[in-house]
Order: sequence, then C-alpha cells, then structure tokens
Amino acid sequence: MAFILPSESIDGSPPANGLHMNGQDSLVQPLLTDFYQITMCYAYWKTGTHNEPAVFDVFFRKNPFNGEFTVFAGLEDCLRFVENFKFSQSDIEYVKKILPENADDSFFEYLETLDGSRLTIEAVSEGSVVFPKVPLLTIYGPLAMCQLLETSILNLVNYASLVATNAARFRQAAGNKINLLEFGLRRAQGPNGGLTASKYCYIGGFDGTSNVLAGKLYGIPVKGTQAHSFICSFSSPDELKIRTLNHKDSKETSDLFKLSTEKRKWLLEEISWGVVQSEVSDGELTAFVAYAIAFPDSFLALIDTYDVLRSGVINFVAVSLALHDLGYRSMGCRIDSGDLSYLSRELRVRFVKVAALNEDYKFFEKMCIVASNDINEETIMSLNEQKHEINSFGVGTHLVTCQKQPALGCVYKLVAQSSQPKIKLSQDVTKITIPGKKKCYRIFGKNGYAILDLMMLEEEEEPKPNEQILCRHPFEESKRALVNASKIIKLHNVYWKDGVLATPLPTLNEIKQHVNESINENLRQDHRRYLNPTPYKVSVSERLYQFLHHLWLQNAPIGQLE
Amino acid sequence: MAFILPSESIDGSPPANGLHMNGQDSLVQPLLTDFYQITMCYAYWKTGTHNEPAVFDVFFRKNPFNGEFTVFAGLEDCLRFVENFKFSQSDIEYVKKILPENADDSFFEYLETLDGSRLTIEAVSEGSVVFPKVPLLTIYGPLAMCQLLETSILNLVNYASLVATNAARFRQAAGNKINLLEFGLRRAQGPNGGLTASKYCYIGGFDGTSNVLAGKLYGIPVKGTQAHSFICSFSSPDELKIRTLNHKDSKETSDLFKLSTEKRKWLLEEISWGVVQSEVSDGELTAFVAYAIAFPDSFLALIDTYDVLRSGVINFVAVSLALHDLGYRSMGCRIDSGDLSYLSRELRVRFVKVAALNEDYKFFEKMCIVASNDINEETIMSLNEQKHEINSFGVGTHLVTCQKQPALGCVYKLVAQSSQPKIKLSQDVTKITIPGKKKCYRIFGKNGYAILDLMMLEEEEEPKPNEQILCRHPFEESKRALVNASKIIKLHNVYWKDGVLATPLPTLNEIKQHVNESINENLRQDHRRYLNPTPYKVSVSERLYQFLHHLWLQNAPIGQLE
Repeated sequence: MAFILPSESIDGSPPANGLHMNGQDSLVQPLLTDFYQITMCYAYWKTGTHNEPAVFDVFFRKNPFNGEFTVFAGLEDCLRFVENFKFSQSDIEYVKKILPENADDSFFEYLETLDGSRLTIEAVSEGSVVFPKVPLLTIYGPLAMCQLLETSILNLVNYASLVATNAARFRQAAGNKINLLEFGLRRAQGPNGGLTASKYCYIGGFDGTSNVLAGKLYGIPVKGTQAHSFICSFSSPDELKIRTLNHKDSKETSDLFKLSTEKRKWLLEEISWGVVQSEVSDGELTAFVAYAIAFPDSFLALIDTYDVLRSGVINFVAVSLALHDLGYRSMGCRIDSGDLSYLSRELRVRFVKVAALNEDYKFFEKMCIVASNDINEETIMSLNEQKHEINSFGVGTHLVTCQKQPALGCVYKLVAQSSQPKIKLSQDVTKITIPGKKKCYRIFGKNGYAILDLMMLEEEEEPKPNEQILCRHPFEESKRALVNASKIIKLHNVYWKDGVLATPLPTLNEIKQHVNESINENLRQDHRRYLNPTPYKVSVSERLYQFLHHLWLQNAPIGQLE
Repeated sequence: MAFILPSESIDGSPPANGLHMNGQDSLVQPLLTDFYQITMCYAYWKTGTHNEPAVFDVFFRKNPFNGEFTVFAGLEDCLRFVENFKFSQSDIEYVKKILPENADDSFFEYLETLDGSRLTIEAVSEGSVVFPKVPLLTIYGPLAMCQLLETSILNLVNYASLVATNAARFRQAAGNKINLLEFGLRRAQGPNGGLTASKYCYIGGFDGTSNVLAGKLYGIPVKGTQAHSFICSFSSPDELKIRTLNHKDSKETSDLFKLSTEKRKWLLEEISWGVVQSEVSDGELTAFVAYAIAFPDSFLALIDTYDVLRSGVINFVAVSLALHDLGYRSMGCRIDSGDLSYLSRELRVRFVKVAALNEDYKFFEKMCIVASNDINEETIMSLNEQKHEINSFGVGTHLVTCQKQPALGCVYKLVAQSSQPKIKLSQDVTKITIPGKKKCYRIFGKNGYAILDLMMLEEEEEPKPNEQILCRHPFEESKRALVNASKIIKLHNVYWKDGVLATPLPTLNEIKQHVNESINENLRQDHRRYLNPTPYKVSVSERLYQFLHHLWLQNAPIGQLE
C-alpha cells in the first residue's frame, strides 16, 4: 500500500523522497484529532452502528478574503494521511487512559484493526478553483472510520487551500510579469505553518521561497538576499580578511574594495546624486564588497540600511560597476522600508542615468528591484496605481498567516448513512447541508469560461453539452436558469479505493500549472476581481432540488404557536 | 549533550518522551531557515569574519492585540533546536546545489563542523510577561553561527508567544471561574500550527484541549463532547443494536431508551416547556441514548442540532434523569449556535425547574453548560455584560489563528560584534535598536507590582532595592523618573553554555503557573485591561542612554541641504 509519488526534480533540486516528502509525517497521525472523534467512535461501536456505510462531504460555505473563488489544496496530504492511518500501540495505550475506566476492552482491539482500506475518497483535482457548497472531497465507508478522519482532513485542507488561495490573489494583484517570492517563515504559525505556507504559496502562484527546507523537500526554487544585520556587521574595510576577487575570465586578481571605492568616486563626479560623499556609508560599501566577493555572479544588495537614495544606491552601483570590470553582472537590489513606489521610480531614474554613462552599462536600465516590507494584496494594487518600477516582491506575514482571514471554514458533514440521505438543518439557511451522495459538474459556456457548478443526485443521468439543463439555486425557489453547455467537466475523481491510490497524483509543478489555468483560463474576470466580484453560481438539478426540499420539510418539526 | 527534560506526568497522562516530546523534531532543523542566512554565512566565511564574536538580541517592538503585555514562550523549543543543530549530509548536498557553482568547497566542510557548542543563550524565563524592546533572548557566539539561527529562533518564538498571549487574554476576559477549552485543531495553520497552539494555549491559561496528540505528547488534559454528525446519524431507536445499560451499583439491566422516553413523557407533563411533543426529536433522543450508553458517567450532550429549547434540552434532561435512576450523573450539555447568553440563561431556568421536581435532582441547578461557536475575547466580554450561565467555553479559530493579529513581530538584531556595539538606525525611531550587550531588570514598587523594566550596560553595577535609580526613556530626552524599588529581579538567566543546558527547565505546568503569577500577581490591572491599557514603562539607565545617543549621532551621517 504505497503511493507512486511524484519524484521528478524541479529546478535542479533533489527528487522528492516518497512518503517523506512533506516532512510532517511525524505529526499527521490518527491522534492528531479532536477527542470527540474518539468518543463518538466509541459510542458508534458500543451501540453497533460503527460499520454502517456512511458518506461525508467536505465543503466550505463562503469564499475567503471577501473573494468569489477558492483554490483547493491539501488533497495529497489527505491521501497520505489515509494511506498511513493506523493506531500505534502507544496511541491505543493513551486512548485507554483518556477514555473512562469502564470502557469496553474490545473497543481497543477494534481500534487496532482500523485503517483506510475500507474507505473510498472522491475529490476535485488538487489546484482546481472551487466554490461554496460543492464537495471538495466525498469520503465514504464505515461510519466510525469516516468520523475519525474529520479533524485531520479539515486541518490538512483548510490551511493549504486558504494559503494557496491567498497566493493566487497576490498573483492576480501583481500580474504575470512580477516575480513573487514568499519570505514568511519567521512569522508563520509554527515550523510546519511555515513549511506548508511555502509549498502552497508556490502552488498558488509564487515563484520561489526563502525557506530552504521547502526547497529541499519540495524542490521549490529558493531565493534570498541579505539582512540588515549583515550590513551592520561591517564598519570598515579593515574587517575584510579577503578583499580580492579574480576576473571571471582572465582570473586576474583585483582589490574589489579599492576598485569599488574608485567607481564610487567617479560616480559621484559623473552623476548628480544630490549628496555629499560623507553621507555615503563606508560600512555599507564594505558589506556590499564582502557579499560581492562571495557572490560575484548573483550580487543582490539590501540598500536601505542607511539611506536608499543617499547611500545604498550609490554603493550598490559602485560595487556593480567594479564587478562589471571583472566580468560579472549584478542581479539587483532590495528595499525593505520607505515609500516603495517613490523609491523604486527614483532608483530606476538613477539606473537609467548610469546606463547612459557607457554603452556597456546598458544592462542597468533593467536592473532588478526587489521590494519587501509588510506587503499585502492592497499594497500591490496601490503600488500598481501609483506606478512603480519594482520587478519582484518579497512577501511574508500577510501571505503566510493570511492576515485578512487566517482560517478557511471547511466543514465535514454526514450526508448519507445506510443508503438514507442525511440533512443537517439550521435556522440559518446557509448552514443547511445538501443531502445524499452527489455527482458534480462544471458547466462551461460558449466563450469557454465556466458558468456554474451543478450538483445532481447520484442516480441521475449525466448532463450533456448542447442540451438544455435546468439549474436551480439550492434554496431560493425563484432562481432557476436553463443552461446550454459548450463543455461539461465532471468535478470528482476517485482518488482512493480498496486501500490504494486510484488516480495518479500530479507533481507540484503540474498542480501549480493547474491553478493558473483553472483561474485564468476558466474563470471570468468578474469573478476574480478584487472589488465586488460577481458570485459564481452553484446550482442543483431539478431532482436534487425536490429531494432536498422534501427532506427538509420531513425533518423540520412543525411548531405550535401559543 | 542531552537535556534532562521534564518527565512528570500531568493529569494521569504518559510521561513526556524526552527530546521527542514536542513532536516536531523532523521539521526544526538547520535548513528550516531563510536562504539568506546561508548566503550571509557564506559571505562572512568567505571574507573571514565568520568567527568574530557577535551578540544578537531577540525582541519585539509592539505588544500584540492592541494590548500592553506579551507572554514569552517557545524558549524550550529554541534550546532544543540549538542542542540538535547539525547539518546532515543531505542538507550539505542540497546547500551545494543552491549556492552558486563556483562556491568554495571548503565552506561545506566548515558547515559540517557547525553546532551549538560555541553559543551562549541568555533568556527571560519561559512564561514571563515581557514588553517591547527588552531582549527575550540574547544569543552570542561566532557571528556566522549566530546569524544562521535567526529565522528558526524567530519562527519558534513568534507564534508560541503570540498564541500564549492570546490565551492569556481570553483568560483575563473570562475570569478564573470559567473553564476554557481549546478546540482549534481543524482551523489551525497546519498540523503543527494546531499542536503548537494546543501546547501554548494551555500554558497561557486554558484548562484543556480537544487535540488528542497534544494530550499524548504534552500531558495536557483532553476534552470533547460530540459533533452534529453524531446526532444526525441517528434517526430512530431501531438503529441501536444495544439499548440497555446496567445500573452502576446493582448492575441490574435496564432499557435506557425506554426509560428515557418515559422520563421525557413525565417531564413534558410536569414542567411547561412551551412545546408539543412532536417538536422534540426522536432521532436526537436516540443519539443521546447511544452516547449515554457509551459514557454513562460522563454524559455531555450537544443539544442544538434541532432546537435547543424546544428539543435538545428536553431530550438531554430526559436521558440525564434516566441515567440518574441507574446511578450515574450527567456532566452537562453544549450549545454551538444561537444567542449564547440568552440560551444559557434559559437553560439554567429549566435546570432549576428540574432540580425543584425532586430533592435528588438538586445537582441539576449547577449542571455544566458548555458554549462554543466563533468565540473571541470580545464575545466573552459581551457575554459577561449580558450575564450568562455558561460554565465552560470551547474556543477554536480566533484563539489558535490569533485572528485579531496572526503574527508577532519579533526581530533578531546584531547589537555587538568584536566588542564593538552595533546600532541599527532608522528614520522611524521605534525601529532603532538598543546597542550593546545589556543587563535587564524588573523593578517592583511598594505595592508589589512591577513598575518598569530597566536596561543597563553590562559593566554597570547592579541596581539595588531601596536606593534611588534614575530610569530614562530610551529615546525621549525629557522622560525620566527616579525609582525606589521594593524588589528587583534580574530578567535573564544563562540557559545554554558550552554545549549544555545551563539552567534546569521548568515543566509545562510550572510554566503555566508562572504565566498566571507573572500576569495576575506582578502586573497592575491597568496594564492588563482590554480598553486603553496603560503602557508599561521600559527604560534605560543614564549610562546606557548616553551610550545609545552617542552611538546614534556617531553613526547617523550629517546631511547637506541644498
């Protein structure tokens, strides 16, 4: 019972290491659950209903971030959890301790027998855009076993989907030309919060991460520049034990600090920077030289420690020109404070001036500017409006903690048991569940975009393209539409059956690609936009509508007014 | 080099399992870091500054949640990380791949040699109340090695401290008589986000968690009731394969469903519930009976699936009375929707009526009412104002994701290198670091409460009680005060030195106790209150003030206006 997990190498990184690739195996185990799952399991078992066939749907009721779409993620983690599901002896010992003393001993023998072999899992493909009420996963099998999975599955789907959606929204805001880097590890909610964030931000649309472990485990490209402490740690060139660098081709040795100092002197004469030399920090120049000696071919400098325009940019250009003399090309600079729009434009002006000094310096026009510092979706949109010259955003806290809404509210609801549909009623109509095992379809219109999702009873015939399909709002009687589909996609595949994986899993990069297509090619712009996006329609067939409302009335008690 | 970790058993749970007790070992490893730590490390090494002695402070600039205090947590995790710090061969292989091809091979040999043995770590004791600017940890040792720890240490301290502080704030809002339970696993940010939350919420003031793994690993009391799906899964008593329960003492067998039905009939006659029998769900009664058969001595029912007052409470009381006849006592009921204040008061009215029916039912007056459903600090305060009869809150999303502010902004700053103080300047005064290695004290006034924290230069003489101490605001010249201390506590201890633990670590329960004392006994109420709390003063000695401002002027370049 072992997956054939994707082992392809992304970006020159090592192949993923089978079941260990997600690095959280030690935590995702049967006891990572709410205690009530175990008490309920005991009660089902005790009263003999534990093996009744049951169907549970995983779905959410509202898209996050005031948006109208969600990216589904975490499926592979769920499947791996089910594949490895087995109570260890020490788990059983612990459960004995926390259940009442008079609990029946045979229950623990029953617990020992449990695994995922009698479960079936259908799911939407990972990375798909999904909408409220439509099941992301449908899990069926013995009632008690299904019940035991609830908390772990929700934990694995909720945050993965939330952070992938957040990343996709950042991508929407930034457009396709900007490089987006995830820098959130230090502010993430725990070590795994950071690792999960790096993985699912990449899937959702980011280009790389600062998180080295995520790079190692998942093959995500890792990126990084330097910290203020690096700049602060250098006061004078005397501190450098090595100041020389060899020419890239001729291997001739030069004093990079001396050369950079000369370049700086020349630059201060050639271009009007509006500063006096005493303002341009020597400590900063030393730090840049140290970094350039280490990374002559990928020099990227943090230039805001002292003053971006009065010190940082001048030192950066000086070292870059010195490197250029020795056959190397700088990668760019990073700003981590101040007015990012203004600073990036001012930097570009200066880079263009430098480019004009010499035909060989033309590459300076397109010098990469990386910006970080508390960036969120709104900051990016505001920067877009103000115009900016930033090529790459480094995003941390807002991205990984999903500051705007730090939890997705997926739920796990019983929808059928022993072939009987189950409905969870509520005075709040949005909380009523759609009963029964369902088939779900995505209906595409003539222009190629998705129009709506349609849920049907399992025994209904499949809808066909180019035929009229009556689609109804699940709860509002008057909302109906006839739809003529250009294309229909079945949303669910069977991913797990009879103890083995039933559909091959895509690689991380395939999932990432699927997110991109699912959003940009299938979803109309008005569903995606930031301000007042149009809700995407989720509907039910006529038969499911009747079935749902019949069951609703049947289950809702008739009150008596006094 | 192994800790003597606390192994005491809490609440009958298994002893903690040494270094594996936190269950996240597989993740907290040297590569769980930002790439730039490794590139900087390479640059330090390449230019020969890597072994210069350096001092880094970990501190934050602003208390979270608009409050004026923070609970420091995560120290043990940091120490364990440092103890186990060692690059594996596969780590080194991976680093080779992501550094430029021309990186010097000897660097990788150097990386192999790195461990925590040359570091010293001083820290505030875990669970202490802490304030902005004062170092939570001071880490010193070789520059490059200290630099490599930054991201991991911040990751381990930021979320642990944030969620412990959040839990402490919930405790402040709820008061000491309410039972607080953490139910957040399904909405937490990943598996470890959930596990970390359970641990640090307990430390911060919660009484238990629903997270079974947290119970197993840390010995935290685990609690749970049942889910709506359990209630929905029962439609009629025919589904119960077992309906009988033995009397607790006489062992005589009764049909619990039949007995509960009789009790319900009687209750509907004896008390005016304002309902007709058809409103009281039989499926719900069946589910309650099933659960009661499994847990006769700890029956706690979820009563809002159909209607709390028109169905749930009646079924709950009926089953409770049936259990009572058989020698068992119910624990209580849970409501998960609706107006929690109103419902809890109405429930109490009904329980008091039931208690009045029979001398033996007097325990019903104090029947436990558990409330859950999107509870946050403000909900609890609002419920307090409206009066409520809730005995226990189950709190999930808001608590574990820290919805109000999902990240704490701890930073890791270089403050000295090769015996030279370092200062990080910024146009934003709040971002300027306090340079140099410091000694920190908490000064208590006559009433026994802490008045302020005082930072001094390391070479200064210790402050003494009952002598005038001049305390200055670090940046605002005119803010000074003479303080006469009744008691002075040194804030930092050396926790790690020469490769071993230098101070014994407290148990989880000792840390929890310390949080409670640190907040409730040492901190004035006006610092703790929700609305407009008084900022706690953090000050520097006269000498540190002069030192800081001298260095500031020395490092800030003199601009020239044109």
